[in-house]
Formats: sequence, C-alpha cells, structure tokens
Amino acid sequence: MRPEIVLFGDSITERSFQSGGWGAALADTYSRKADVKVRGYGGYNTRWALFLLHQIFPLDSRKPPAAATIFFGANDAAILGRTSERQHVPLEEFKENLRKIVLHLKECSPTILIVLITPPPVDEEGRNEYARSLYGEDARKLPERTNEAAEVYAKKCLELAEEMGIRSINLWSKLQETEGWQKKFLSDGLHLTPEGNAVVLQEVVRVFKEAWFSADEMPYDFPHHSVIDGKSPEKAFEQRCI
Amino acid sequence: MRPEIVLFGDSITERSFQSGGWGAALADTYSRKADVKVRGYGGYNTRWALFLLHQIFPLDSRKPPAAATIFFGANDAAILGRTSERQHVPLEEFKENLRKIVLHLKECSPTILIVLITPPPVDEEGRNEYARSLYGEDARKLPERTNEAAEVYAKKCLELAEEMGIRSINLWSKLQETEGWQKKFLSDGLHLTPEGNAVVLQEVVRVFKEAWFSADEMPYDFPHHSVIDGKSPEKAFEQRCI
Repeated sequence: MRPEIVLFGDSITERSFQSGGWGAALADTYSRKADVKVRGYGGYNTRWALFLLHQIFPLDSRKPPAAATIFFGANDAAILGRTSERQHVPLEEFKENLRKIVLHLKECSPTILIVLITPPPVDEEGRNEYARSLYGEDARKLPERTNEAAEVYAKKCLELAEEMGIRSINLWSKLQETEGWQKKFLSDGLHLTPEGNAVVLQEVVRVFKEAWFSADEMPYDFPHHSVIDGKSPEKAFEQRCI
Repeated sequence: MRPEIVLFGDSITERSFQSGGWGAALADTYSRKADVKVRGYGGYNTRWALFLLHQIFPLDSRKPPAAATIFFGANDAAILGRTSERQHVPLEEFKENLRKIVLHLKECSPTILIVLITPPPVDEEGRNEYARSLYGEDARKLPERTNEAAEVYAKKCLELAEEMGIRSINLWSKLQETEGWQKKFLSDGLHLTPEGNAVVLQEVVRVFKEAWFSADEMPYDFPHHSVIDGKSPEKAFEQRCI
C-alpha cells in the first residue's frame, strides 16, 4: 500500500542507515507514509551498478518504486594510475551509465520520481590523513581521488539530469557553501559526518517536496490512534473503504 | 531477493528509525543482507492492531517476511479509569490478540521467525514529570500507566510465547537489570532513549542469531566490490548464476 522510495548508490548510500545517516532519517521523515529501501553498494561505480539493475528494479514488478535517488560518481571519479584506479570509469561512460540507469527506471515506471545526486566534494587532505591512519608511512603519496575530478563528474551528472529533464542535487557544490566543509561534513575526506548526512537529507526532502512528493501531504497508511473510538474501533477502519 | 524483517508494534516500533533508534540500527546490521520494514503504530493496542493484520501481512503474498518482531503491550496496559483508558485492553484479551497475530503470521509463512517483545518497564515518576511538562498543574494526579501493570502484561506475553513455542524478549525485566534504568533507558518514563534502543537492538540481534538468522552468516545480495575484477567485472556477477 505504501509507496516505496529506493536509494540506489555506493557506500554513501549503503552507510545511510548508520547512526545519524540520511537514509534512516528519510525513512523516519516518511514514517507511516512511504517505505525506504536501501540499495547501496560500497565501492561500486556506475559500470558495476549496471549489472544489478534488472535484479533491483525488475521490469515486471507489480509495484515499482514511486521514487528513487541515484547517487554514484565518488568511485567512478577515482584517478587513473593511482591506488583506486580499479574503480575508475571514464567520464563519458559515467554519463552514459547514468543514462542507462535512468532509462531503465523509467521503463519500470513512467511516473517514477528520479533524483540524481552528484558525488560529494573530496577533501584531499582528509583522504591523506585517513590513508596515513590506516597505512602509516606506506600510505600512497598521491591522492586517489581529487576534488577537481569530483567536480568534473558532478558537472557531468548535472548535465545528464538537464538533458533528460530530471531533478538533481548538486551535492558537490552545496557542501562547499559552508566554511569548514572539509571536516564539518566529511569524516575521511569523502564519506559523510552526521552533519553531512543532515545536508543530504535536507536536500532530498526539499527536492521531493518540489516534486509534490512531500511527507506532509501524504496520508497515513492507517488511522492515527487519536481518531479511533475506544468503544467502536471498527468505525475508524471502515472509513478507509468508502 | 533479500529476506524481509517486519517490525510490527506501537510507538516504540514507529519511532525506531529516529536518531539512535533500534530499527535503523537493525537495518544497518543486516545491510545488504535483509530489508527491514517498519510497521509501527503509535498509540495502538493489540485490539486495534488486528484491524491491520491482513493488509500488512496479506495471506497471498508471494514473498512473506522471513522474520517479524511483535512488540505491543505498552498501550494495552494503560490503566482503566485513568487518562489513557481508551487504549486499555483486558489482560486475557491482550493474550488472545497476540495469539491471533502469531497464528496469522504463521499462516502467511510456516517458516517465519517470530519474536515477541514484552512492553518495557514504566517509570511512573518519569511519566509524571513528562505530564507536568506538557500540562503543568492540570496534569493528572494518578499515573495512567504503572510498572506493576506493565509487569503483568509482560508476563502474559512471555506465557503466550512459551505456550506457542516461539521466541521472546523480556524487555521489561532486561531493562531493569541496570541501575538507573529509569532515566538511562527511558526518555519520558515509557519511550526509549538511544541507550534503551541499543538494548533492544542487542536483544533482537541475539535472539535472531540464536534462531540461525544471523547477519554474519548471511550472504551479501551482490558481490563485495573487492572481488570485482576491474578488467572483467562480468565474471563476479556471472558466478552468482552457477
């Protein structure tokens, strides 16, 4: 009965149900109104995500999702020739992969609300500190991800959203509007702190609202307890069938 | 593909995706292994919950839940003749309603793992403080819920679990094992603090594990990114079909 919101993405989506995470907070925002299903795959890029598409979003579903966030790019933008190059996807392929994902979702449901989220900015110093905390002196000297690359992939993501007429969130830009974003919003130069998660939540809720998919305007799945008559509770439930 | 865990209960379940909540933490524990669906209805007792059963757990579902928690009683145990008496359900009816819920779930799926959770203890002084914070001098003088009543309902819940041979969590007793449980685990004498939520999480995870439904032993839905060959990614996904 409840509409479903699917969060499709990489580790920033996978971890969104950790304490303070944007996915759990979104589920709470849509409490008793919509279900939030996490489909986040740490380390995945858009090329690998394509292998999952038909299983996560089967074309013959009787009840396709009402809304979906597509949140990739942080891995696609890993730099060639550096330690994470295995995850790298060339820029134009990244865009075409995103296009395939969007087209597949639209084939699942012509009315689905799709929101493309750009990768977040990268704090290279934060990445370095994180690498040193793991590997000490053996940590790679050159950053495996740069903010410059993240920007290019973010722009490509926005370009596709514009071309396809779908909604988007420029997270790369949004997070950098706040002074001290590097430590305030990112825990290791790439993944989100609770404050960073709060920004994602706020942006997703804002865009959903603009698309008339606001929790405030959606009905509860069942009557609020305060309208149930203690002596004749059946009345509250019968009314739903009129 | 992923098995589904349904959390069916009252406000303590409904609020379980708030920050620090046990539901969100359970979803994170089963990340990429099982989906957690919240079906919590603030203020509901077991009598009203029966009206929802067939819609939440349809008998003709092609994919019934693999596991469910049933977590009612806090409202059923509201005292007759006091401010929350509308929510009161007589003790024997409470037990029979729980039995109906369990039998319905078993009809949905003979293999479903059902865990009955007792209502938490009540800190009457905490309830009083909360009432005074809302209504000041107009607050009711007599508690609408007592720890004595909560105990009786908790025992009835355990009695049913024993009779039906299903698993249970004695939350009423468990929370009171810790000194200062009144403030440590309860925010308003009834609902859970993040620490109280952590206890529920720990207990649910423990009982699921005892029932061989442990996240540690469940496969990921798709390959971990580290096993994907950057040059031939299809191999990692083909292996799933063997």
